[in-house]
Amino acid sequence: MDVSMRDVVALSDAYDLVAEFGAAFELVPEALRLVRPDNADPQTTRYALVHAPSTEALARFPNLELVCSWGAGVDKLVGHRGLRPEVVLNRMVDPGQAHMMAAFAAHYVTGWHRGLFQYPAQQAERNWDIVNWTPNSEVPVGLLGFGRMGAAIGRGLHALGYPVSGWASLARVEDGIDVRTGADAFDALLGESVVLINTLPLTPATEGLFDAGAFRAMRSDALFVQLGRGRQVVEADLIAALDDGRPGGAALDTFQTEPLPKDDLLWRHPKVMVTPHAASSPSPAGVARVVSQAISAYEAGERPPGYVDRTRGY
Amino acid sequence: MDVSMRDVVALSDAYDLVAEFGAAFELVPEALRLVRPDNADPQTTRYALVHAPSTEALARFPNLELVCSWGAGVDKLVGHRGLRPEVVLNRMVDPGQAHMMAAFAAHYVTGWHRGLFQYPAQQAERNWDIVNWTPNSEVPVGLLGFGRMGAAIGRGLHALGYPVSGWASLARVEDGIDVRTGADAFDALLGESVVLINTLPLTPATEGLFDAGAFRAMRSDALFVQLGRGRQVVEADLIAALDDGRPGGAALDTFQTEPLPKDDLLWRHPKVMVTPHAASSPSPAGVARVVSQAISAYEAGERPPGYVDRTRGY
Repeated sequence: MDVSMRDVVALSDAYDLVAEFGAAFELVPEALRLVRPDNADPQTTRYALVHAPSTEALARFPNLELVCSWGAGVDKLVGHRGLRPEVVLNRMVDPGQAHMMAAFAAHYVTGWHRGLFQYPAQQAERNWDIVNWTPNSEVPVGLLGFGRMGAAIGRGLHALGYPVSGWASLARVEDGIDVRTGADAFDALLGESVVLINTLPLTPATEGLFDAGAFRAMRSDALFVQLGRGRQVVEADLIAALDDGRPGGAALDTFQTEPLPKDDLLWRHPKVMVTPHAASSPSPAGVARVVSQAISAYEAGERPPGYVDRTRGY
Repeated sequence: MDVSMRDVVALSDAYDLVAEFGAAFELVPEALRLVRPDNADPQTTRYALVHAPSTEALARFPNLELVCSWGAGVDKLVGHRGLRPEVVLNRMVDPGQAHMMAAFAAHYVTGWHRGLFQYPAQQAERNWDIVNWTPNSEVPVGLLGFGRMGAAIGRGLHALGYPVSGWASLARVEDGIDVRTGADAFDALLGESVVLINTLPLTPATEGLFDAGAFRAMRSDALFVQLGRGRQVVEADLIAALDDGRPGGAALDTFQTEPLPKDDLLWRHPKVMVTPHAASSPSPAGVARVVSQAISAYEAGERPPGYVDRTRGY
């Protein structure tokens, strides 16, 4: 074995990460090997790739220094009892994944705005009526969350001619998009947007953020697109709000409980579009690249590109 | 009446252009008035906004110098017997319309690539399976036609991370997109693209371009998106090709006969998505702006932005 070869232990209770991503690790220039726990040395292994790891799985590797999350959301990891405070936590920041998210979001923006979701039913009736051709410039889109995902969605929608505004914890102008902050700006964005797209990280501040009051602030012709975390949405409030007329619809990709239980009302609500947490995923090549970049940065004494501030929570 | 006020006569057998666009003309800085034929002076009127005008309608205004098409396609106008050769022809080049087209195209690209069109049926079955999450970077898109519409689609898809190639009458690199020309490049693009989007102008060279041979060159997993003109597609060949397995599907917005006849097989072909020539439309403000810009350029002795080379055909 090459002495410079470094092992990355794969820790997941749900997925065989080595089967999914092992081959891609062999292609990165850094000498990395993604291995199962039984093939990794408990004492010398410093790096891990994880998805929802158990405390026991992490405890087997007491000398981990850098833990890379397979997911972009790290809400289950920031306070994980199995991660010592000095362990560096890194999340997935694959540009390819952000592009997938952006294209997914754009599909729902235009599908809603132009009534494209209605054409299959019209086709079945051989109906030649045009549903809507309001110009994109008259359809404001609000991005709740402006991290890697939100910014990629913003760039995509901007290139398609939609007026985009953002809301995040830090006010700024980025890529020509005005990003606001604070409770008043939140309410204002909810009230003015025809499509609202949530990609906020799950933190104590965003848990249950989308409740009866938030939905009441939305327009009756608005679509709420949920790409964040299920626990940010009070689902009973959403159903009541849709029945009450605002927002006009919801495209939900994440839920309080996943998979969405068979008897959940959201499956069959006429104003809800359900997708199975399918908006984006890092590719094997993307996972291997992000992990290798994180290890290179860490070994150079730098902060890795996907560094997570565990106090802030993302 | 203000002596500097100029009349633009609206000539259409199908639409009341004054009702649709008259108010927008009052808002442009140039002093223009969009009027019906009965309110325009047959001898002094120099400008017209037209949609499928009859030879008789044009003959009433023998001194027209600049004729602006309401549509982006001018195939019915370039050889029109009612237009003297010296009349300058201008087509619609509204950036807002191009953005609508780009967003419409992107909806079908991602809907096809990610299997998003299948989720409504899965939702009805409460099925939590993910259809597809191939990265956008692995989904080549071919743009047949790279005018204002094709270029806008290319910029939008590029911002969403799709690899885009173009094909047009003039080879070039534009906005970082490689645009090829010639028969070999046409066949190559058909064979490599997962989504093919046609926005070519209708000319003798493109009439019937999409025939059995073209469809046979496409991939079995390809979607053909028709945003050009109906007469470019041999519809019987398309139906046979879909039944034969390539391309894999078609999203058709234009047809040989429009409205699509009730008994047309395309309405109920399982691999065809029909929309009613709904991809894009210029806004009233866009129409007024394009016409006023064309008149200003013409009066300054310049070529208007939407100038049509009537020999070339677009």
